[in-house]
Amino acid sequence: MQTESRAGAGVRIQPEALARLCGDVLQAMGVSPEEAAIVADVLVTADLRGTSSHGTARLGLYVSELRAGYTRMKPAVRIVRETPVTALLDGDGGLGPPVASRAMRTALDKAEEVGAGLVSVRNSNHFGIAAYYAMMALERDMIGIAMTNASVLATPTFGRDAMLGTNPISVAAPAGNAYPYVLDMATSTVSYGKVEVYGREGRALPMGWALDETGAGTTDATRVMDNLERRKGAGGGGLLPLGGIGELLGGHKGYGLALMVDILSGVLPGAGYADRMYLTDDEGGGLPANVGHFFGAIRIDAFRPVEEFKATMDDLIRRLKATPKLAGEERIYIHGEKEFEAAAERQRSGVTLHPDTVASLRAYADEFGVPFSH
Amino acid sequence: MQTESRAGAGVRIQPEALARLCGDVLQAMGVSPEEAAIVADVLVTADLRGTSSHGTARLGLYVSELRAGYTRMKPAVRIVRETPVTALLDGDGGLGPPVASRAMRTALDKAEEVGAGLVSVRNSNHFGIAAYYAMMALERDMIGIAMTNASVLATPTFGRDAMLGTNPISVAAPAGNAYPYVLDMATSTVSYGKVEVYGREGRALPMGWALDETGAGTTDATRVMDNLERRKGAGGGGLLPLGGIGELLGGHKGYGLALMVDILSGVLPGAGYADRMYLTDDEGGGLPANVGHFFGAIRIDAFRPVEEFKATMDDLIRRLKATPKLAGEERIYIHGEKEFEAAAERQRSGVTLHPDTVASLRAYADEFGVPFSH
Repeated sequence: MQTESRAGAGVRIQPEALARLCGDVLQAMGVSPEEAAIVADVLVTADLRGTSSHGTARLGLYVSELRAGYTRMKPAVRIVRETPVTALLDGDGGLGPPVASRAMRTALDKAEEVGAGLVSVRNSNHFGIAAYYAMMALERDMIGIAMTNASVLATPTFGRDAMLGTNPISVAAPAGNAYPYVLDMATSTVSYGKVEVYGREGRALPMGWALDETGAGTTDATRVMDNLERRKGAGGGGLLPLGGIGELLGGHKGYGLALMVDILSGVLPGAGYADRMYLTDDEGGGLPANVGHFFGAIRIDAFRPVEEFKATMDDLIRRLKATPKLAGEERIYIHGEKEFEAAAERQRSGVTLHPDTVASLRAYADEFGVPFSH
Repeated sequence: MQTESRAGAGVRIQPEALARLCGDVLQAMGVSPEEAAIVADVLVTADLRGTSSHGTARLGLYVSELRAGYTRMKPAVRIVRETPVTALLDGDGGLGPPVASRAMRTALDKAEEVGAGLVSVRNSNHFGIAAYYAMMALERDMIGIAMTNASVLATPTFGRDAMLGTNPISVAAPAGNAYPYVLDMATSTVSYGKVEVYGREGRALPMGWALDETGAGTTDATRVMDNLERRKGAGGGGLLPLGGIGELLGGHKGYGLALMVDILSGVLPGAGYADRMYLTDDEGGGLPANVGHFFGAIRIDAFRPVEEFKATMDDLIRRLKATPKLAGEERIYIHGEKEFEAAAERQRSGVTLHPDTVASLRAYADEFGVPFSH
């Protein structure tokens, strides 16, 4: 249910052109065609779904992390430990999306064999939108789960400084006639991308999203970003957990979910966790980021026939949508619904990007000598 | 991190006396000694941990649901479908705690064999505190997961009436020297028990917890309870999802987590879901409640050596606790910590119950002719 940036003066581009550009730039840097295509697909899928903060606007992040050495160009991804149901995958510092895709496929294959699969990953990097991986389960009529830890941005309850990532959770489950259920949520009140959008547009943050460096609630997006980007959160302050400040409205629950993600994605596979990620060497150079992920796949027909499950999902969704509405509201949404509708529309008429994003993509096209027509 | 009711004029009782009373009453009704002991243990564990809303104060609920026919006295619990990793358990309308304990044991046994176990349950009832089952994993050095759907109390985002339960999620993971991590959270801003405590004490609810029957935020606990208890939520209004009203502070995330719990606990096993629970027959008699649960167990050493995992947990916890604090705060908590400290103290000096609770327990003791000394 993330909203897109207001793009009044935006530029409309066909998704195929965006995917080609991203893939070409990464290949020009030395990434294999297969891996470049997966990264491109993840970024364009985010743009199509309206999660523009995780879309092609982030190509530059992948490029700069490859350059800085946080991300390795030719990783030797391998399974370190395995049972019929579980696997520990080492991403060898490679690009997040190909590592994560392979891990989720492994979970799905195991579920196909034995009923469920759980795969945790160490030595990985940003994987983009979590929903991409959870949704891989849908075409196989399974329930998919994806989570990842991330660079330090969110404060624990009663803490003044950031100590956890926005640690998202995604869960996807198929339905029959209705769109599938696809939850994809940062465990902070909002994702960092949303704060960036407010900052870019000069809008005041709602109270309850972030703390400044003194620990007070703030509406100043630029101040929050300056603090967080200066030495990875050491500037103080940060995003608030879902539920906000303190415990009165459940902030300890958002904090607890972020911690759960860090345990399953960081501690369980032996990846980075809390502030033990994106470390630098003595000269300030980037060490492997050591991001960790956790994936799950559940075969529905291990529990009940898939068609029964889907028919029940449709009935559950119908009941929720029939709930009497709050004054001024006309519709109750199921998670993923807004994004499926946005993607269908944009697949037809193109993705609208901010002019700054287009300029930055064009600069990469020029730098790496690849075409960018739109 | 649930807080207990203020019990200035409370009565202090030894946990053993409470467990004996609960077990004796249930046995006097016809429940088997084994099953009665499990229910008693779940209720007293809740009192010890400070979750008094789910403690022995709820004995009456179990008694009345046995009487009303929602809960069956002598259920034939059975595994309906099974893979090496998964099981679908039918609780045959039995008491929730014994059904849930058996399901969690099944998940743990499967994890022991193949690395992980996932068990979903249909035809069950209230199971008490979710943490009880997730924590069963700790003594086996595993990660435990427990969730359940529940009677209709919580509103979906943009909805005016309740359509989902407070659908709690519990996750437990062992640590080394530190207390284990034990998350146990309603996916609504607060549990219904907390609203009951405020109502009993005549306190105003904080805004952000509940809606009245017009869809407006309310501080009136009695009004919320009257609406919800009149025909299972048909009075209108209800609890707000974690994140509050609308989407600005993430209310759609709490709603999405509640829906995830209903999919895994209700739709997947073919149990009740949304308002398809606690139904009555044409004469208004109770049909089996058909509550559903979902349990997971993950063997840590399928991923990395347990001692390494525990040492890393200790380091993660140490780092979180060392975060600079907000003004006026002296301590950052890990989930479960308050409850472990409370339980240790109460195990020594007894559980303090509200005088009304003690009077009600005494009434059951008298009615069923069992001793209650304290």
